Amino acid sequence: MPGVFICEEIEDLPIREIGGEESDISAESPIGVFDSGLGGLTVAREIMRNLPNERIVYFGDTARVPYGNKSKATIERYSRQIVRFLKTQDIKAVVVACNTATALAIDEVRRTAGIPVIGVIEPGAKMAVKATKNKRIGVIATRATIQAGEYASVIRGLDPEIRVLGQACPMLVPLVEEGWIHDRITDEIILRYLDDLLEHGVDTLILGCTHYPLLRSEIRKLVGGGITLINPAYETAIELGQMLSEQGLRSQTMRSPEEPNPYRFFVSDDAGRFTDFANSILPVDVKTARVVPIEEY
Amino acid sequence: MPGVFICEEIEDLPIREIGGEESDISAESPIGVFDSGLGGLTVAREIMRNLPNERIVYFGDTARVPYGNKSKATIERYSRQIVRFLKTQDIKAVVVACNTATALAIDEVRRTAGIPVIGVIEPGAKMAVKATKNKRIGVIATRATIQAGEYASVIRGLDPEIRVLGQACPMLVPLVEEGWIHDRITDEIILRYLDDLLEHGVDTLILGCTHYPLLRSEIRKLVGGGITLINPAYETAIELGQMLSEQGLRSQTMRSPEEPNPYRFFVSDDAGRFTDFANSILPVDVKTARVVPIEEY
Repeated sequence: MPGVFICEEIEDLPIREIGGEESDISAESPIGVFDSGLGGLTVAREIMRNLPNERIVYFGDTARVPYGNKSKATIERYSRQIVRFLKTQDIKAVVVACNTATALAIDEVRRTAGIPVIGVIEPGAKMAVKATKNKRIGVIATRATIQAGEYASVIRGLDPEIRVLGQACPMLVPLVEEGWIHDRITDEIILRYLDDLLEHGVDTLILGCTHYPLLRSEIRKLVGGGITLINPAYETAIELGQMLSEQGLRSQTMRSPEEPNPYRFFVSDDAGRFTDFANSILPVDVKTARVVPIEEY
Repeated sequence: MPGVFICEEIEDLPIREIGGEESDISAESPIGVFDSGLGGLTVAREIMRNLPNERIVYFGDTARVPYGNKSKATIERYSRQIVRFLKTQDIKAVVVACNTATALAIDEVRRTAGIPVIGVIEPGAKMAVKATKNKRIGVIATRATIQAGEYASVIRGLDPEIRVLGQACPMLVPLVEEGWIHDRITDEIILRYLDDLLEHGVDTLILGCTHYPLLRSEIRKLVGGGITLINPAYETAIELGQMLSEQGLRSQTMRSPEEPNPYRFFVSDDAGRFTDFANSILPVDVKTARVVPIEEY
């Protein structure tokens, strides 16, 4: 898909000094959102829809995607580098818009960011606890997220009686990225993954990977209306709004439609599919994503 | 699969000075083999089978896998770092055991390695040219390998009359890594990808990604006996033997069965699946893979 993606040279980047003062941060500063690649755009989308006055700086780690099969130490290192980059953009808060990075590195991000941080797991887990009636919650996610057990741990911290059943679904991200969304093969793979969870009678299912909301209508079709689907991207946007309000960091002014670049996109590799994907799911037109040499941060 | 993988600390690593002299290199030195992760093990396997006196240092870039959807500049940088690491192990030659890295970075590796270099594309392309009778060759590979057009370019350099048809198959690597090898879903996906190539009447099919030989028997079953399947891993091992002989670098002494560690394995991340996968396909027992901080090379 060459030709759509406009990759600008890194020299053009208005990157500030690393470790510079944070005195420029205000309620009008942007929110830093990051993910291993494309999936976190579903979180950015919910922020755009639900917090329309906010500005966003998005970073997708397209050079090192996917995170789902990598170790905690590696994901922590990647997350630290990304937060260091995002902070050069005067962000007021960090959204870890990746379930794997949240599961493996949110503590590390909180420890090092120095500004408010929110991940996607707690908001999704909280809503699932509210939604379940039979106290059986299913979680589908990458292998790393399931193995980290963070959804189960947060849910049981809220209600120890709830049974949490996890299912790693490594094929779903490639299927979404291949564009096979409404597809018989995808349906068959989803059913294979969900078989066990459905047999165990879960009444609530967390879409625990930021790509999965894009399969939401397929999953809805396959599981029927009796199961509540939880989209942590939506819950995260809502909780982010509350967190910003509490900290006096919520943008209060209606953004002018003429404001240039309220949403800015950065990637670690210009493989060319980022803006295509972004334009296919976001309510705004994404013209460019700038390449950042993230290993240097 | 924790518990199987023994990840030793990097401090234990007998890493030599980067940029040290190459005076220790002899015919008994190991061959450096690298891949984005697990797939290159099919090339290592063919070297073990066909050049049993050779020693191997294998590097799998498990922290940055996959390469198939990344840019040329990124793959070149990764390959340079890996060759710098491999050279600390006194290797006598480099095998780029990854189709994407060969397609995008072999020139860069040749330019910087200072020792003989072989990739997987030329050997596979040459054998396909020998095998085809109707001058129609199909290539299945990652998106990056197909887009790079290297197979087509090498093949047409040998015989401009040959028509080369490429098909990117992004789902096949995840399927192999999920272990769904003999599986109805996999068969259906393979057939979907091969449909066009078969309709165009190719009589020779190059398995242009190092994971694909693991699907060889499924592909054989689906395409029937009339199509020659080319495994570049095998052809590369044979051509590697010739290259080493020509350069006086072929190991002449039968290795003692007691020799400790003729095959050594390094990875960039200890996500834990490397040794499991290695043990499932290699004719030797792989106990450890050491983690290398490859970004520092």
